[in-house]
Amino acid sequence: MDAITALGLIAGSLTTLSFAPQVVRAWRTRSTADLSLATLIVFLAGLLLWLAYGVVRGDPAIVAANAVTAVFVGLILSIKTKHG
Amino acid sequence: MDAITALGLIAGSLTTLSFAPQVVRAWRTRSTADLSLATLIVFLAGLLLWLAYGVVRGDPAIVAANAVTAVFVGLILSIKTKHG
Repeated sequence: MDAITALGLIAGSLTTLSFAPQVVRAWRTRSTADLSLATLIVFLAGLLLWLAYGVVRGDPAIVAANAVTAVFVGLILSIKTKHG
Repeated sequence: MDAITALGLIAGSLTTLSFAPQVVRAWRTRSTADLSLATLIVFLAGLLLWLAYGVVRGDPAIVAANAVTAVFVGLILSIKTKHG
């Protein structure tokens, strides 16, 4: 693997895993009033389109990164819609 | 432009622009307690690495999308660190 590919993998790991602490916080506190509902919905829609893009391009890195991020953001959105 | 490229552009526009409502909400309410500080810091670090990746790959779409998203997330982080 070359250095540029490694840079992309590190970047993708950070942007994907960064949402785990937000999931944990929302789950623990059940307090999500400060989170923008519009942001969660539009971000999730964008992630699902990225996922589709990765599938049609046959790029497993794009598929994996966006699938995991979509699960995290879906969990946050689900807590938000239940607990406000 | 082919359909797959268009799909990628729509996906990138959505994931980038999705953070604008969160900036507006944090700016208006000055209330960001529900936002995870760790998420904001790690996400911003990941976006800056994506930006570097786009620069070395010479890919203006990756540069543009991540630069704009990094500005949005940087603004949210700055409101968070000022107002908690």
